[in-house]
Amino acid sequence: MTANGEYGFKHAYQGFPLNAWYVAAFSHELGDKPLVRRICGDLVVMFRTANGEAVALLDRCPHRATPLSMGTVVGNAIQCGYHGMEFGPGGKCVKIPSQARIPERMKARAYPIAEIWKWIWIWPGDPEKADPALIPDHHELKLTDKSWNAMPQFIVPMSGSAEMLHENLLDTTHITFLHKGAFDSGGMATTEPKMEIKGNAIRVWRELEETATAMTARSFEIVEGVTYKRSLITEARVPHLEIVSNVFEDPAGREATRIRTSVIAVTPGGPQLCYQINTLVTNYGSLRTMQFKSAEAQQMIERVKGVIHQDRDMIGAIQANYAEAGDEIGEVSVHADKAALEFRRKMVEMINAERNAAAARATRSAG
Amino acid sequence: MTANGEYGFKHAYQGFPLNAWYVAAFSHELGDKPLVRRICGDLVVMFRTANGEAVALLDRCPHRATPLSMGTVVGNAIQCGYHGMEFGPGGKCVKIPSQARIPERMKARAYPIAEIWKWIWIWPGDPEKADPALIPDHHELKLTDKSWNAMPQFIVPMSGSAEMLHENLLDTTHITFLHKGAFDSGGMATTEPKMEIKGNAIRVWRELEETATAMTARSFEIVEGVTYKRSLITEARVPHLEIVSNVFEDPAGREATRIRTSVIAVTPGGPQLCYQINTLVTNYGSLRTMQFKSAEAQQMIERVKGVIHQDRDMIGAIQANYAEAGDEIGEVSVHADKAALEFRRKMVEMINAERNAAAARATRSAG
Amino acid sequence: MTANGEYGFKHAYQGFPLNAWYVAAFSHELGDKPLVRRICGDLVVMFRTANGEAVALLDRCPHRATPLSMGTVVGNAIQCGYHGMEFGPGGKCVKIPSQARIPERMKARAYPIAEIWKWIWIWPGDPEKADPALIPDHHELKLTDKSWNAMPQFIVPMSGSAEMLHENLLDTTHITFLHKGAFDSGGMATTEPKMEIKGNAIRVWRELEETATAMTARSFEIVEGVTYKRSLITEARVPHLEIVSNVFEDPAGREATRIRTSVIAVTPGGPQLCYQINTLVTNYGSLRTMQFKSAEAQQMIERVKGVIHQDRDMIGAIQANYAEAGDEIGEVSVHADKAALEFRRKMVEMINAERNAAAARATRSAG
Repeated sequence: MTANGEYGFKHAYQGFPLNAWYVAAFSHELGDKPLVRRICGDLVVMFRTANGEAVALLDRCPHRATPLSMGTVVGNAIQCGYHGMEFGPGGKCVKIPSQARIPERMKARAYPIAEIWKWIWIWPGDPEKADPALIPDHHELKLTDKSWNAMPQFIVPMSGSAEMLHENLLDTTHITFLHKGAFDSGGMATTEPKMEIKGNAIRVWRELEETATAMTARSFEIVEGVTYKRSLITEARVPHLEIVSNVFEDPAGREATRIRTSVIAVTPGGPQLCYQINTLVTNYGSLRTMQFKSAEAQQMIERVKGVIHQDRDMIGAIQANYAEAGDEIGEVSVHADKAALEFRRKMVEMINAERNAAAARATRSAG
Repeated sequence: MTANGEYGFKHAYQGFPLNAWYVAAFSHELGDKPLVRRICGDLVVMFRTANGEAVALLDRCPHRATPLSMGTVVGNAIQCGYHGMEFGPGGKCVKIPSQARIPERMKARAYPIAEIWKWIWIWPGDPEKADPALIPDHHELKLTDKSWNAMPQFIVPMSGSAEMLHENLLDTTHITFLHKGAFDSGGMATTEPKMEIKGNAIRVWRELEETATAMTARSFEIVEGVTYKRSLITEARVPHLEIVSNVFEDPAGREATRIRTSVIAVTPGGPQLCYQINTLVTNYGSLRTMQFKSAEAQQMIERVKGVIHQDRDMIGAIQANYAEAGDEIGEVSVHADKAALEFRRKMVEMINAERNAAAARATRSAG
Repeated sequence: MTANGEYGFKHAYQGFPLNAWYVAAFSHELGDKPLVRRICGDLVVMFRTANGEAVALLDRCPHRATPLSMGTVVGNAIQCGYHGMEFGPGGKCVKIPSQARIPERMKARAYPIAEIWKWIWIWPGDPEKADPALIPDHHELKLTDKSWNAMPQFIVPMSGSAEMLHENLLDTTHITFLHKGAFDSGGMATTEPKMEIKGNAIRVWRELEETATAMTARSFEIVEGVTYKRSLITEARVPHLEIVSNVFEDPAGREATRIRTSVIAVTPGGPQLCYQINTLVTNYGSLRTMQFKSAEAQQMIERVKGVIHQDRDMIGAIQANYAEAGDEIGEVSVHADKAALEFRRKMVEMINAERNAAAARATRSAG
């Protein structure tokens, strides 16, 4: 922040840390048909073995660089579609049809993987650093807390950096303009936000007095015409999550507080590609009994997706402008960008720490 | 020119001068819907304020690089579609919804702009050098001369450098081959052209005796079967115009001379993109009463556009060959290329002068 | 090969020798409509003059870089579609419409060309080295041997290097997996291949005992249920041919041996483009009377093409992985790759010899 209270600098998007857990898929996407998704720059093929184990491999056969995803899941392995070599969990080669001996170096690159709740987490960086303790607590996220309701919703790929999507979610001013009429009574952009930082969490929120309309009464199961304390809270977990909560609280305390949260995994696809992976969590009502595949749930999901597509289009357009002008494009920041700028600072810290560690290793092995 | 009267060298297309006025649009294209066009490498958004003023801005919000063209014209400004900042004439920020104070550096890049006759001129280079006296005299071009008739026709984007389009218009030999049957009695390619240079104008012309056919009699309002002196005159104004005139003169002086001129703005879009922006001017007849939106005018415009599309396809194909082989592609020139080579020489002079001035400034500020 | 009997190295695809004859087209493709095909990186325009002579020129007019293929074949020359210049065999300019004198340097680049049997061979490298004696003997290939039957089939462009296609054809293990069910009784991948090298020929083959099924009996005109010695022989001729023969031999000698050969020209289009140009040759039966344009022949051709499209898709996918990861992608080879690795070695030898000769010439002319 400069002396006169303004942020302003040339910004270069830094990419993303590799030594981190990212959500790569929903559980229900994995089966005996190979699924390919670009994660942190790599093409990753994911499948589920006959034993039910989730596997994530680099989508490239170590023999002749064929995409393994063009092959077939055979038992507990994936068979390459070109010369028939088979690779199982951990990337281990279990068969070479044209010879009995399996060379030691014949291994597919495997990603550390964890299937928790309905999420598939993978670790794109150094496998030796892949500590499962670094995966966020799914109970604390209310995903596995039985007193809450959680429903996986959708994945929207966006043609922009993951950092741009984090910034989008941290500056809720955009709700008033980009999503005009969708969520907001109009006061969101002009209300001063508050901020709090703890470890890798950046929490920013706005509080309003709001009288429930027919629509909000229906969504939040509250009483039309009554005035509530409404909060919009965004909590970033650097580098992989954004937790966006809408809270309606009755100041008179007659009704229980309603909380409706989007737990959003933000996963880098590449320098100009990311995914918004949405899950809905509520502490009340109808979600408890709603089936994911029901027409009612699908309609709700499509409605939210329509709004997220506005973010996708905007982020794609910004990325195109960066592609035009290079990463050294100018920027002028305002107070509402505070949380996003803190997020950037933490991302850059993580990325630099990774780079410095790599440089130190290179020096040691050369020395 | 080499000793034996031949031109021949490796040619590298040089780009275009930035410190120049170029036609960016027709007046009727500007309104309260943002218009985006790439001019001299920049994406430029143009609109007309509620006051009727034409505005041209870089299509990039200074806050977070959003294309302003995704926003909305609101009163005398354009409102960014992401966080609602507003920018008016000169790129001045007039509103930031989330705070009262407008930081000094929050400015959109604005292009000097002039609306004259039905043309929007902009200056893509250093705004301090944007002297309105450098805009060509529209009266002398017959655009604002009431004794002539002028009608804006069309804009054809081409996937090649502006220089290639100037060369196309300066070597009218191509009429016989590329536009076979469209304009020419066949003698154009074999008639020796004459040339004259004055300031930034290069004038090249061919003179023939030609007996009016039914078609030329109708177009030029002359008498079928009578033999006229016909001239085809191309005048380049470096770097932004080509004025192509067809003249039928009665040697016996019984009829007034007929002049039918295409005043063509040639505007660079980027290194491999340009626009041919056509206006028709005549000193006689039917154009006087023809309405631009009439079916008759639109048919005439479509007919000419069809021919220009042949130029567009050829220029796109040449540019693709340059993309193949690099700018150091070989060339062998002939006498008919003389005017085009003079044009190149003047373009290179302007571009070099710009570069030298920039280098001198850099030296001074470092010294 | 490493000590433990494994191949394994970082592989960078090397491109292709230019000083070599390659099949550029089938004879029947050339006529008075210009045909453009990318050969060894160049866009080559081919046509047949009024005299019936085949001509191959760089698809770029020496005057202003126009694709000559946008022009018209006029008598024994091709007329440029822009300013009408005409170029004949050897690239000689025979007409400039706007002047009488033809400058010495006004020449189109011409490729040495030979029309033999139904193939058009061209030499993309130094024309002075284009020795017709280096063209393979078409009689020995059975193409012009009247006791055999030869039919041109199809050209399939592939988005990968020519080297990848040669390797595909030399490691027939892939037949079992990529072409599952098309050719193979399943034993191909697990039978040990033999190899023999002579000059620029690398011959690799597998021998099986095989009982004729209804399908093989029909194709090879042999007796269902009888057990034959079956051989699959691939012979590479570096750098331009692959000759793939299927042989059924009756061990009891009651029937004549049946040979069915695909004579495949492998022609580089560019670093990431090649063509598989197929011709079928048999020493027996139905092909003798089958007309190329008959429905029966076309059905057979389409059937084979369907299988080749599986190779095309796989090679395109591998090339995409190389584009992802750079030419320094890792590889682990197995015994079945032996012939392909020998092929690579010979290609690299040819390419290096060419480069060294070019470097030596440069040194001499500088010295």
